[in-house]
Amino acid sequence: MSQLRKDPIVSRWVIVATERARRPAAFVDPQSTATDPKDCLYCRDVSAKVVYKSHGVKVINSSSPILNSHSPFERRTHGLYEVAHSYGSHEIVIETTEHTANMADLSKEQIKTVIKTYALRMQVHRQDPSIEYILAYKNYGVAAGSRDIGHARSQIMAVPVLPMRVKDKTKGAQKYFDYHERCLFCDMVAQELKIKERVVCQNEHFVTITPFASRFPFETWILPKEHHCDFADGIRGREDSLAAIMKDILLRFKIGLNDPAYNYMIQTSPVKKPLAFKDDYHWHIEVMPRLTRVAGFERGTGFYICPIPPEMTADFLREVDINA
Amino acid sequence: MSQLRKDPIVSRWVIVATERARRPAAFVDPQSTATDPKDCLYCRDVSAKVVYKSHGVKVINSSSPILNSHSPFERRTHGLYEVAHSYGSHEIVIETTEHTANMADLSKEQIKTVIKTYALRMQVHRQDPSIEYILAYKNYGVAAGSRDIGHARSQIMAVPVLPMRVKDKTKGAQKYFDYHERCLFCDMVAQELKIKERVVCQNEHFVTITPFASRFPFETWILPKEHHCDFADGIRGREDSLAAIMKDILLRFKIGLNDPAYNYMIQTSPVKKPLAFKDDYHWHIEVMPRLTRVAGFERGTGFYICPIPPEMTADFLREVDINA
Repeated sequence: MSQLRKDPIVSRWVIVATERARRPAAFVDPQSTATDPKDCLYCRDVSAKVVYKSHGVKVINSSSPILNSHSPFERRTHGLYEVAHSYGSHEIVIETTEHTANMADLSKEQIKTVIKTYALRMQVHRQDPSIEYILAYKNYGVAAGSRDIGHARSQIMAVPVLPMRVKDKTKGAQKYFDYHERCLFCDMVAQELKIKERVVCQNEHFVTITPFASRFPFETWILPKEHHCDFADGIRGREDSLAAIMKDILLRFKIGLNDPAYNYMIQTSPVKKPLAFKDDYHWHIEVMPRLTRVAGFERGTGFYICPIPPEMTADFLREVDINA
Repeated sequence: MSQLRKDPIVSRWVIVATERARRPAAFVDPQSTATDPKDCLYCRDVSAKVVYKSHGVKVINSSSPILNSHSPFERRTHGLYEVAHSYGSHEIVIETTEHTANMADLSKEQIKTVIKTYALRMQVHRQDPSIEYILAYKNYGVAAGSRDIGHARSQIMAVPVLPMRVKDKTKGAQKYFDYHERCLFCDMVAQELKIKERVVCQNEHFVTITPFASRFPFETWILPKEHHCDFADGIRGREDSLAAIMKDILLRFKIGLNDPAYNYMIQTSPVKKPLAFKDDYHWHIEVMPRLTRVAGFERGTGFYICPIPPEMTADFLREVDINA
């Protein structure tokens, strides 16, 4: 079983693998990047482990789960530290029955099913009163933290604590709302659509921008044009539109940047929403190709150097011919 | 000139390269890792650019500075965003006249000179009333964000804003002090020295631990045993001791983990210290080998999964024979 541990300085919770930990020596050699389809875990018959399926999308419990709900969530002290066993769930969303690696190559219909699956699983997990946050995210490629690039898949983690960045974002949005009585994200969307220089693509319900204070080259955010704090509820009736804009931006990455590794994370509101969150938080998706290594001081200080202005990357991505 | 831009959501400042930005296409191909000594910039005569030197250590201005003080620091709005030109300074500390790559291979005397140089440059930069924070850090190896592994060097950046993690750390330490009327770091040092399971090595003035809520495998922190908020002042008379413990931990990494890439960052207090900081903040150094890639949700949410418990890495590092 793993542990959830809280950093006493910045109140950051981390998961620490304990019993199933990798041996120290395992870190000395680089990870395998083997992608042979005949060894693909996700091409095999996984029916015994399936917790949900729909139109070729299957959700299974992670085979090496770092979270589980076998015993109740309980925080306790350890001297001046805080610790808990790593309560929660960790699921793998197998996005297609084919051995296709990149979500950019799935049909819009298939991506739509993946999106609906995220929303449905979030609705299930939030019934558990111990769950505070549900993360749906993807690691594509070794540089993005995946072990291989074999078969399109993403992950859903339901955790009993609020991740640090989620706290930062909701607090920041709240401060803005307190002062302006308007949603910060709604104001951002309005400003970006007016200025246009950081808009990569848009459709009826969504806009993709390269954020003004980008941390990483080609960082993009997909923002819903209408206000909604929650992904699982806000996405209803908008799944087609989100599938279309996700395929669009992922194709721009694939064609324009030579099939880079990338991550996306759905940034929805905390499960237990105080009433205020409904007005001041606005769900969105961060999509980040992994083209550079983050240097020490960025990792250690949260102070990033973005080596290219977002206006230039928006321009570049806009001009990629995704119908080529 | 680059820009400093503030993320309106989490109030995170980032540096965005503008005029000297890399072209979008430059991100498509992986970076060069060439390390040929005859092409080494730091082996050449750099005397024209030297701003400080002592016992084989030279400090030069970065040849592609992302910060400069040519015009005064001024924050301004850009719609709902905040921006400033990237005021400050960016220096390279060339740690030796030899073409030695790893600080672990320098003599203690040489490391001591590097440490003294950091302190002296910090004392110079903090005379500038626009400077809020001074970062001294090292990127060793490509995986740690360096362009090559050619010649031992580190960097000093003086910036006119507080990095996000520094704010988080000082705020967290302040909360603890407000409640307990004791320094959080002093309490941590006492607890770690008593429990011992996360102590890697120690000497008269410093202890190296693997932190309880480690984010990364083999993450270590060097903590002064005596309280001091500020590196440049607190290090006086302790330079020998710090040089010894730095060489010790870096040798443990080199021998035990097969010469891994690593970063270290000196986490000193902000330049403009309210009186409170003196009691509740405690300078320290984070040292992190770069053995794994950070996956998407960690980067996006600040929620880390550490694949090995710090007690196990402390044990492993303690047993490395650095006299082999």
